[in-house]
Amino acid sequence: MRARHKPWADDYLSSHPEYVILNPLEKKGKWQQVFGNNQPIHVEIGAGKGRFVMGMAKQHPEINFIAIELAKSIIVSAVEKAVEEEPKNVKLINFDANDLRDLFADNEINRIYLNFSDPWPKNRHEKRRLTYHTFLAQYQQVLASDGKIIFKTDNRGLFEYSLMSFSHFDMLIDHVSLNLHEDEDPLNVMTEYEEKFSKRGHPIYRAEVCFRKR
Amino acid sequence: MRARHKPWADDYLSSHPEYVILNPLEKKGKWQQVFGNNQPIHVEIGAGKGRFVMGMAKQHPEINFIAIELAKSIIVSAVEKAVEEEPKNVKLINFDANDLRDLFADNEINRIYLNFSDPWPKNRHEKRRLTYHTFLAQYQQVLASDGKIIFKTDNRGLFEYSLMSFSHFDMLIDHVSLNLHEDEDPLNVMTEYEEKFSKRGHPIYRAEVCFRKR
Ligand SMILES: C[S@@+](CC[C@H](N)C(=O)[O-])C[C@H]1O[C@@H](n2cnc3c(N)ncnc32)[C@H](O)[C@@H]1O
Ligand SMILES: C[S@@+](CC[C@H](N)C(=O)[O-])C[C@H]1O[C@@H](n2cnc3c(N)ncnc32)[C@H](O)[C@@H]1O
Repeated sequence: MRARHKPWADDYLSSHPEYVILNPLEKKGKWQQVFGNNQPIHVEIGAGKGRFVMGMAKQHPEINFIAIELAKSIIVSAVEKAVEEEPKNVKLINFDANDLRDLFADNEINRIYLNFSDPWPKNRHEKRRLTYHTFLAQYQQVLASDGKIIFKTDNRGLFEYSLMSFSHFDMLIDHVSLNLHEDEDPLNVMTEYEEKFSKRGHPIYRAEVCFRKR
Repeated sequence: MRARHKPWADDYLSSHPEYVILNPLEKKGKWQQVFGNNQPIHVEIGAGKGRFVMGMAKQHPEINFIAIELAKSIIVSAVEKAVEEEPKNVKLINFDANDLRDLFADNEINRIYLNFSDPWPKNRHEKRRLTYHTFLAQYQQVLASDGKIIFKTDNRGLFEYSLMSFSHFDMLIDHVSLNLHEDEDPLNVMTEYEEKFSKRGHPIYRAEVCFRKR
């Protein structure tokens, strides 16, 4: 996702502590205190401009949402949406989610959303894909035992890879759709990429997976 | 697959014992003797008019192929192809493959091909789908420990169901393609249904799965 360099972004993020958590490492193990209630916590990784998390937060006031996005120039758009819509159950983090265990204690979260994650199509970049086994091991640690991962993408190669990766990590595929928009789910909340690529006629793939209980 | 009633079919099948095995139950545990060599055995279930098995047999003379097809009026077309091409490594069985353990001893076969199996889309017919867990348990028994199942279909619902069913049966997804014909595999041998539905623009799905070794 591209965005212009925004020199004012730092100031803008700092001026909205009600949505932007500036010291997220200090919140590890204490996220329910951050929200001030004990609702389940759902985390989106690579949230982009925040369309998905804002839509989900509106649809699910009984859930707390944390959206993580690496690019400062992109997450500002999510902050702008939050400032406008004033959700009580959304926190935004401008952070590199390459190890969720820095941010969350064991079992602290209940769901992870991966939406249109960067595909890293070259074999030598396999380790960077967010469904590579090292990431799955991190997710398993921070997710509660009944937690799950919901993954959407239009990228066929990444989805194929991820199905294999889930299977080899001994995860369960609970639901899968190979053409989400043909299923016409009225509760589906679209991301920016989803809107763009489904309009171009790409099928949208979606999987719901969890860790096998042993 | 529809075909006209063919009153001469019985006679035709009986007159080609070099390809058509009329008493397959008696061959259980003795299939290598039937072929007269100890090559690995690959089995296709619901082989239709035999295009796939004939193509594979030509491409892989080092493998013995057994094609099972329930409908007499359809399997005659496969027999006609065999009579014309005279493969040494193909046997045809006009049989209901609803329990492969009737036909094969434990570990007797090395691969199972499911090609465009009937989708049985209604929930109440789930048990008839050839990737329902009772079928998977049969396949596990008759397949050698390094055996695998290769499944192709254009039916999205059946493929989605099958991915979940494999995963819940603790199987490994070794390869998966969500658009086989875009991959341009020069060794892919098409079935009759594959030709027809790929021409109509349906993506062809393919999975290679095996049983987890414990
Ligand atoms: C292809 S975009 C998709 C954005 C959004 N999810 C959507 O569907 O419209 C991927 C996003 O993930 C972000 N991203 C990539 N790696 C990340 C990481 N390690 N931590 C946080 N965000 C990351 C990128 O900055 C980019 O905004
Ligand atoms: C949809 S057709 C596909 C035929 C062929 N595999 C193709 O791809 O062109 C399914 C075939 O499976 C056969 N079939 C269905 N159930 C079967 C069973 N229990 N045992 C053997 N064949 C079966 C049907 O008669 C039909 O020819």
